[in-house]
Amino acid sequence: MSNYFRGKKPIGIFDSGIGGLTVLKEILNVMPWEDTVYLGDTARVPYGTKSVETVTRYSFENARFLLKFDIKLLVVACNTASAYCLRQLQQELPIPVIGVIEPGARKAVEVTKTKRIGVIGTEGTIRSNAYVDAIMRIYGNGKTMIAEHGDKHFDRYFEITSGDVVIFTKACPLFVPLSEEGWTNNDVARLTVEHYLKGLKSNRIDTLILGCTHYPLLKDVIQKVMGENVALIDSGRETAADAAKCLMDRGIIGISSSKQGSHRFFVTDSPDRFKQVGSKFMTANVDNVELINVEKAE
Amino acid sequence: MSNYFRGKKPIGIFDSGIGGLTVLKEILNVMPWEDTVYLGDTARVPYGTKSVETVTRYSFENARFLLKFDIKLLVVACNTASAYCLRQLQQELPIPVIGVIEPGARKAVEVTKTKRIGVIGTEGTIRSNAYVDAIMRIYGNGKTMIAEHGDKHFDRYFEITSGDVVIFTKACPLFVPLSEEGWTNNDVARLTVEHYLKGLKSNRIDTLILGCTHYPLLKDVIQKVMGENVALIDSGRETAADAAKCLMDRGIIGISSSKQGSHRFFVTDSPDRFKQVGSKFMTANVDNVELINVEKAE
Repeated sequence: MSNYFRGKKPIGIFDSGIGGLTVLKEILNVMPWEDTVYLGDTARVPYGTKSVETVTRYSFENARFLLKFDIKLLVVACNTASAYCLRQLQQELPIPVIGVIEPGARKAVEVTKTKRIGVIGTEGTIRSNAYVDAIMRIYGNGKTMIAEHGDKHFDRYFEITSGDVVIFTKACPLFVPLSEEGWTNNDVARLTVEHYLKGLKSNRIDTLILGCTHYPLLKDVIQKVMGENVALIDSGRETAADAAKCLMDRGIIGISSSKQGSHRFFVTDSPDRFKQVGSKFMTANVDNVELINVEKAE
Repeated sequence: MSNYFRGKKPIGIFDSGIGGLTVLKEILNVMPWEDTVYLGDTARVPYGTKSVETVTRYSFENARFLLKFDIKLLVVACNTASAYCLRQLQQELPIPVIGVIEPGARKAVEVTKTKRIGVIGTEGTIRSNAYVDAIMRIYGNGKTMIAEHGDKHFDRYFEITSGDVVIFTKACPLFVPLSEEGWTNNDVARLTVEHYLKGLKSNRIDTLILGCTHYPLLKDVIQKVMGENVALIDSGRETAADAAKCLMDRGIIGISSSKQGSHRFFVTDSPDRFKQVGSKFMTANVDNVELINVEKAE
């Protein structure tokens, strides 16, 4: 098959739920002509508190479902899944697979001046140390010192020193329910952000990776709490740029100045809630949502 | 089989996750001699935002798993599952099945003086109107007027008038993540409770049903916000009393002044998190936790 026809195939994207729509939104900003198939595993959300084995099993079920649409690229728009099983997906699937961790880590390394980087995400993403590993790989430093503070599970907060880089990470489990509730700029949101980011702020980071696809919705209040001098890295935006580059390099990007891509959405639980909450995330209507069962999809 | 031997069988309890442990705790307060088998469906939690079909399917999978332990009674310690499929479970299972809705509703009707009752719970429980239906059945009033205020999905708040009873309901989606985070008595908890309960307070309810098994953890701050004159109904505590009565009526209660029951716990995802968070809920160590896959358990 020629690259021309390969280029016409859709991009597949999956997330544990609704959050990945912020990634899809960025993909469409960069490549509005591309067709997409989005799968939100809303029956099994959240992934952030689940184990590596469970998240890996779910991710492969999701990927298998999307492969049936003859996708040319798979975007794992879920930080937890990217952290737990991106390598495995890349090794076992017949198409290129992109996660959200590497692009965010790369951008952070690019913009930090003081080399004091913060990472926030779900419990799973933070516990996995995936962003730390990715940053370390970029700097290519072998030496890593990990100092762990606080209660390991409920006030996780690591200080990781390698060469002259220091990384502070913090799990913020309430950010996802806050953004799904639409409380993204009220006093509860502000207070919650202050509680979680206190340690990162007092450690004077100059760059903060939003390591969960929900977090861009809280961007304004996070920026206010951290101050204007801290650069916020939206992993979703960086992932979209990476996806475009990946398709370009392979000659299978579907560039068209006239065509608007068509978009299908699949969920594993009620489409109603996905449409309603999803419209906030995409800041556009999310229609064409179909209910499926990935467990029985094979 | 004689009732003596039937009495020796364990009680089965399932919940979408950790919350049901507050119900188990109340059961052991009343009947410390009983053996129990608890299943927390932690791989698929939460149920509160999922559809009736999905929650029903999950509940039957959970019930089938527990039946293998030859249980004498099934307690559905999850408000959403009780709201969606208790009748179906009662019809199709060969043992008595108790949910958490009826007992809470009955107690509320018993203690209210002004007949202005509030109900809080997850999105699913509130949308199902299960507590309202249960209260109506108790009063035996045919006439029901439902006035709906606010946005149906994100600021749900119903006023239901039947005869001289008025019921106000409100979904509080952030209460579950707050209690799992252990933020049960800080400023974020207080502010969140104030936001959610403002409407119920200004409507001068005198009784408030905590229609989610997580909510007893927020009891102190809820009581503070609502004031000392509002009676809080802990559905779990009422359910435990009902369970004892059910076993007593059937002559299969295992009363013993010396024996301490033994307790097994099963989860569908990582036992580690269940043990840690669970210990807060039981205010005792939760050990003996095994990982299982209910989807493949048949």
